[in-house]
Amino acid sequence: MEKDRYERGRSLLMDINANNAEKLVESLKDVAPDMHRYVFEFAYGDIYSRPGLDVKTRELATVAALTAMGHLPQLKSHIDAALNTGWTKEEIVEVIMQMAVYAGFPAALNALSAADEVFKRRQ
Amino acid sequence: MEKDRYERGRSLLMDINANNAEKLVESLKDVAPDMHRYVFEFAYGDIYSRPGLDVKTRELATVAALTAMGHLPQLKSHIDAALNTGWTKEEIVEVIMQMAVYAGFPAALNALSAADEVFKRRQ
Amino acid sequence: MEKDRYERGRSLLMDINANNAEKLVESLKDVAPDMHRYVFEFAYGDIYSRPGLDVKTRELATVAALTAMGHLPQLKSHIDAALNTGWTKEEIVEVIMQMAVYAGFPAALNALSAADEVFKRRQ
Amino acid sequence: MEKDRYERGRSLLMDINANNAEKLVESLKDVAPDMHRYVFEFAYGDIYSRPGLDVKTRELATVAALTAMGHLPQLKSHIDAALNTGWTKEEIVEVIMQMAVYAGFPAALNALSAADEVFKRRQ
Amino acid sequence: MEKDRYERGRSLLMDINANNAEKLVESLKDVAPDMHRYVFEFAYGDIYSRPGLDVKTRELATVAALTAMGHLPQLKSHIDAALNTGWTKEEIVEVIMQMAVYAGFPAALNALSAADEVFKRRQ
Amino acid sequence: MEKDRYERGRSLLMDINANNAEKLVESLKDVAPDMHRYVFEFAYGDIYSRPGLDVKTRELATVAALTAMGHLPQLKSHIDAALNTGWTKEEIVEVIMQMAVYAGFPAALNALSAADEVFKRRQ
Repeated sequence: MEKDRYERGRSLLMDINANNAEKLVESLKDVAPDMHRYVFEFAYGDIYSRPGLDVKTRELATVAALTAMGHLPQLKSHIDAALNTGWTKEEIVEVIMQMAVYAGFPAALNALSAADEVFKRRQ
Repeated sequence: MEKDRYERGRSLLMDINANNAEKLVESLKDVAPDMHRYVFEFAYGDIYSRPGLDVKTRELATVAALTAMGHLPQLKSHIDAALNTGWTKEEIVEVIMQMAVYAGFPAALNALSAADEVFKRRQ
Repeated sequence: MEKDRYERGRSLLMDINANNAEKLVESLKDVAPDMHRYVFEFAYGDIYSRPGLDVKTRELATVAALTAMGHLPQLKSHIDAALNTGWTKEEIVEVIMQMAVYAGFPAALNALSAADEVFKRRQ
Repeated sequence: MEKDRYERGRSLLMDINANNAEKLVESLKDVAPDMHRYVFEFAYGDIYSRPGLDVKTRELATVAALTAMGHLPQLKSHIDAALNTGWTKEEIVEVIMQMAVYAGFPAALNALSAADEVFKRRQ
Repeated sequence: MEKDRYERGRSLLMDINANNAEKLVESLKDVAPDMHRYVFEFAYGDIYSRPGLDVKTRELATVAALTAMGHLPQLKSHIDAALNTGWTKEEIVEVIMQMAVYAGFPAALNALSAADEVFKRRQ
Repeated sequence: MEKDRYERGRSLLMDINANNAEKLVESLKDVAPDMHRYVFEFAYGDIYSRPGLDVKTRELATVAALTAMGHLPQLKSHIDAALNTGWTKEEIVEVIMQMAVYAGFPAALNALSAADEVFKRRQ
């Protein structure tokens, strides 16, 4: 059953953000080899797999929150996931700009730089 | 033209969150009577009125960000707006629970208490 | 097996903080009845149950972090847990005072008020 | 010499914010009777006593920072100190409104409520 | 009239921080070409142009807040603006050091590194 | 007597983190030559020297708080200090992983990268 959560989460994350899933496992393998398991099991196997909200909507909410909190490495990863689940660049930019209202202009401007970088890498 | 931004913003906010718009004006009238103008003009007249993303989606992004930042009075107001623009209670709860992944359990639990309060008030 | 994580976490939390475990379940039952499950399963069944660090040390680390982040309701609960796992009032106060260095005096002073309240309730 | 820092800080704080100095000592006397000493010695005896910037300017900087960080109890105390050192209500309101740009509207609106409360108490 | 806000803001920003105004427009031109407009119109055309507080004082408040929030790229830009509006290096360093009291030593030390970099670039 | 605080703090910091003490003084010498004095006197001479909690325990609390707050340069320095005062790599990793519960996964993942870097440098 643990296996189920791990596989369900891993499979969902591979669907929406395969590159970043692999980078996550790789980056943690020396320092905390168990840690990726909680990302797969809890974040994706438990939370993102809940039926009450679709994954596409969840990704936009995550972009908003990571912009507000200033977590830029994770924001870049979730901008990828937002694009992969069907949001357009324009929609992602709109959500980030909107965060100027709630978290201030510096948070929004830093996140727009991160988005610019992701968009250019994917071209 | 300033008039336009003010009216466009005020009208949009009255549509989605009339009670809280009035409370905002009232709460600021002694201390900073100009401040509500920027909420109407910039937040709603400029940003929420932009065509690239619908207001319903914007409200969910705001619920996510306010949960992550711990701004509970404003979160309650935007839970009202999220319900008013068509999200269900279940969907709002899902977004808040999801924030446990990004901002930690305390932020999510405090926001769930705020949601509980709003849901019970509206019954 | 999910059962195992839930029971392991619930049992651990009941050992160190029974009152607050019950309050948590109660406070979530209307708004998000699944949420307490993740606290039991992930926070306590997965993380606090890991063998690499004892629960007493984990509680002091949590007091430090919640002081720095300003999450006062959860801080009060973990001050209870820190006392229940063997820390003295003096040691808890020392850790909170130390946070003035890292998070500033307001964060430390707010946390000392929370500690004062918990200590007086328990007398 | 320690005595000097304590007395210099205490005397400065009594000059600009006597009520709040007494409340601070009182609120800490049971839980952390040494803590007020660091506020007197380090915050006021060391930092606010440095010659490179006058105390009036320091108080406005503190109002800005506490607004941005959302530390409302301490903000109220420093709004008192800002008034006591010669800032007008209008100037204090301007600095708080300006924080909407850097920390978002919720932070600024919460701080305006705090200012409203202080201004009404002092009337 | 919108034109007025844009021009008033742009002109004020060019006066106090011309280099950074140009960098801002440039950095946003691909990802969010409308965004610099809100910085000019709202931040500078509305807020910094308000008569109740002079621009020099506003810049010091901004340095304090950005130090406390840890927004280092924007802090560097506003250290430039603070110098351009008449503050000395010593006064800016004093305000940043003071933030150790409210936001902790790490925030103040990171901001001092940013200031060191700006001061050396301008020599 | 001031001399005592400075020497007591400097000596304690040299014992637990000599490299970083020297780097701190060096990094501040141009921009704010007085600032290291407050780190030695207040942070180490006053707080870390208090008898109510041993320095080893204090260092773990600091690792927890800096992870939660996202202050990565200071976190690296205190991971060094935690290792120097007797914590194992495994224990430090456990505390950082635990912060996923309180501050979210991004904060914990960023801190694990910082720990990985420190561990590899020390090999």
